[in-house]
Amino acid sequence: MINRVKAAVAQLVGGTGSSSSPWNCPECSLAFQYSRPAFLHLSAEESERAADHSTRPILVTGQDRRRQLLPWDTGYAEVINAGKSVLNEDQAAREIVSVEKRVCKNSTAGKTAKDDVSVGKERDGLQFHYWALFDGHAGADAAVMAARLLHLHICEQLRDIVDVLRDGDVPPPISLTSNAGVVTEGGAKSAPHQGDWEPPTDSESRFLLEKEISHEYLVIGAIENAFRQMDQQIEREQSSHGYLGGCCALAVVYLLGKIYVANAGDSRAILIRNGETIPLSNEFTPESERQRLQYLGYLQPHLLGNEFTHLEFPRRIQHREIGRKMLFRDYSMTGWAYKTIEKDDLKFPLVYGEGKKARVMATIGVTRGLGDHNLKVYCSNIHIKPFLSCIPEVKVYDVAKYEHGVDDVIVLGTDGLWDVVSDREVADAVIRILSNCEPDNPNRFTMAAEDLVMRSRGILKEHGWRLSNDRLGSGDDISVFVIPLYGHT
Amino acid sequence: MINRVKAAVAQLVGGTGSSSSPWNCPECSLAFQYSRPAFLHLSAEESERAADHSTRPILVTGQDRRRQLLPWDTGYAEVINAGKSVLNEDQAAREIVSVEKRVCKNSTAGKTAKDDVSVGKERDGLQFHYWALFDGHAGADAAVMAARLLHLHICEQLRDIVDVLRDGDVPPPISLTSNAGVVTEGGAKSAPHQGDWEPPTDSESRFLLEKEISHEYLVIGAIENAFRQMDQQIEREQSSHGYLGGCCALAVVYLLGKIYVANAGDSRAILIRNGETIPLSNEFTPESERQRLQYLGYLQPHLLGNEFTHLEFPRRIQHREIGRKMLFRDYSMTGWAYKTIEKDDLKFPLVYGEGKKARVMATIGVTRGLGDHNLKVYCSNIHIKPFLSCIPEVKVYDVAKYEHGVDDVIVLGTDGLWDVVSDREVADAVIRILSNCEPDNPNRFTMAAEDLVMRSRGILKEHGWRLSNDRLGSGDDISVFVIPLYGHT
Repeated sequence: MINRVKAAVAQLVGGTGSSSSPWNCPECSLAFQYSRPAFLHLSAEESERAADHSTRPILVTGQDRRRQLLPWDTGYAEVINAGKSVLNEDQAAREIVSVEKRVCKNSTAGKTAKDDVSVGKERDGLQFHYWALFDGHAGADAAVMAARLLHLHICEQLRDIVDVLRDGDVPPPISLTSNAGVVTEGGAKSAPHQGDWEPPTDSESRFLLEKEISHEYLVIGAIENAFRQMDQQIEREQSSHGYLGGCCALAVVYLLGKIYVANAGDSRAILIRNGETIPLSNEFTPESERQRLQYLGYLQPHLLGNEFTHLEFPRRIQHREIGRKMLFRDYSMTGWAYKTIEKDDLKFPLVYGEGKKARVMATIGVTRGLGDHNLKVYCSNIHIKPFLSCIPEVKVYDVAKYEHGVDDVIVLGTDGLWDVVSDREVADAVIRILSNCEPDNPNRFTMAAEDLVMRSRGILKEHGWRLSNDRLGSGDDISVFVIPLYGHT
Repeated sequence: MINRVKAAVAQLVGGTGSSSSPWNCPECSLAFQYSRPAFLHLSAEESERAADHSTRPILVTGQDRRRQLLPWDTGYAEVINAGKSVLNEDQAAREIVSVEKRVCKNSTAGKTAKDDVSVGKERDGLQFHYWALFDGHAGADAAVMAARLLHLHICEQLRDIVDVLRDGDVPPPISLTSNAGVVTEGGAKSAPHQGDWEPPTDSESRFLLEKEISHEYLVIGAIENAFRQMDQQIEREQSSHGYLGGCCALAVVYLLGKIYVANAGDSRAILIRNGETIPLSNEFTPESERQRLQYLGYLQPHLLGNEFTHLEFPRRIQHREIGRKMLFRDYSMTGWAYKTIEKDDLKFPLVYGEGKKARVMATIGVTRGLGDHNLKVYCSNIHIKPFLSCIPEVKVYDVAKYEHGVDDVIVLGTDGLWDVVSDREVADAVIRILSNCEPDNPNRFTMAAEDLVMRSRGILKEHGWRLSNDRLGSGDDISVFVIPLYGHT
């Protein structure tokens, strides 16, 4: 796995060692051809069978001799939707990534990328484990791109700060030297290269009232910027190749004893520890992000194209209701109040509908993610993208702070799972499966993932896919990771 | 107390029964002359002594025969600062307010406000209890105005929905009839007046996918809009009378069994229940609201007047650092990353400093509150107000859901208290005082409030006001309410 990632880094990053647009290589798009996750090792025939909407077979890894278990014995399972799209728009990624320190420009000139990577690996590298789910919409293009590349963008963002992160006892310096060595404000150096930094004179001491910034916040910043870079890359690809659509992204990074859960969209991560469920992400939907969307619409009304109002109403206002006092709320409000309806209030609300039916400008049901650069309101020239954010919320879980039992896991799922099964139901199902297996059975997490997909997909009956309680099963794509925590502290 | 409020309502609201600008009466400003809270019943001589910066006497209510206990035996204590301003800029309010249903325009024409209020009281009124602290800055004007009027604005906002709130079993209707009667979407009326609403035809049924909105959210909306109205009134007064400054506002409303805690600024409310502390408010400071401020600066850069950058740095950047890679974060980031410094980054950061020293545009240390309409960056024409919000965050505590012991209280304090004493220290002090008093001693909550002020002001020693642990006491104005919950469910 490591070798494959390295090869991809070498191909994509190139050997310049520069941070400016490392991904502009025309051959990249070859990497974006649709497929199921590589770690499933599907044959062409299996791939075809996997996309059978009538049987919806559940794909897993690790239970077949031909297939390797994922590192950490991670369990994974997925199923295609019930006819919603031709292809499974979910994509998954699981990688172990070596981050090589960026070497100063002069010394890398003439080196190949391979040299760079191998030298770095021996001497100064950091490694992170990575799991991610991408739930595509309006096509799988963005999800495929993100599954192939997001971890490389995270790697790229971390390269500048390898030295800083390795030296966990020294607070991050405000300034990196130009050759990427690290300089502390007092002038002491934790990196071997001599920089051009000078200690401040007395008259400048007022500049030294600096904030304390932890290493954790550097990793969060790196992941945030990696999402932004990934989004920009999709934009470039979309404009040059005409790709459409976007994807929600949920990524987990395990680095230096901490787990970082980055979520942009409506996928979800939970921790199951000692039988309790602990949320590790929040979902970003038109409902949860209403105030942000309304505030932007209020500040930049031209983005609403004279078709939408930034105000929220419990339903659309009818023409004959002009002059009535009706419920509304503005961007600044959490509560509701009555306002006298004017003509402008007849416009379509920027955020309309409730729950899973809520939409931004009647178009999209999630408010964060990657892609969607070309998305417009139907039959209009109004762009949706300004209202979407590509920035994830990153939560940190300090694995080393807790003792974990053999059944403690993190579950990642796309909304196909969570729409029909609650956190508690997921936890109960996982605990049931795990406790019925020998603790040293490496397949138990795969079995748990498979059970969760089965449970949320349901069984095909006369009236469609049904759960055990006869409610409708999820008709969406469903992808699930079950990541054990025992032994990784 | 009720009568005094009613008189003020009559004076200020006028008898029009209309919701449009009820506060535009020139005589209002008479009400804004500086004084200490009326419920302290201070003589002129006492008022003068209270403002003695050298002795900083603690004022309380309820421990003197001449003074009445506040309703609910609420405890209150305050002290002026140690020379920071001439007058105590904190103001407090404690009221019981009767909310009269707004009567339709035709029927109130010709009625006096007094008639309106008294008729309403007998027949259809609602009553709420109200406590509030206003921490003024750059003068006490805004705090004085808000202390006299905010509860009346809340009253005014609630008048439209008296019927809705009284009829707690029926969900709030989407539309009020023009005569303020209440119409449910099905056409049933819970108010006695006949409206002009018609049930929708079948072809309009798609408009009826309405959201469920609870009564609680109506009260929250009323309080939010009351803050906005109060802020606008202060703006009018400031422009016509040249008042300066602003105030943080923390208001508690007890209505129909629930307590609503509305906070705009850096005052704080906590609940002490069964010895545990439960926060009832969040503070709004340049640090806690950094991303909102930066987002506005990013979207509307002209507000920064070419003097400030919306980016955050751990400290100011020096000219010679152009070209270096230095720590920063943008509005979208929670984490930190390194960026190459450009000339624009030398501008002063919009949010600068840390903790109590953090400032918006080097000027103000709180980001929500009332007033500040004329506030500009020193020696510039850059307005601060666009970055400040007058909207409170409103938290709801359902009193009726819990059993409260005789020592369970809500503590409200301005930052003069919380800057030097933690939530836990406050709780421990309150519990100690209360458990040492007979439960039927009505003065015990006043004694607790007094103890908190004493504890945070400290004792004047050779080197200034000192706490019991010899740390510096609070040099700020300190105001504290201790509100018992026992017996009010």
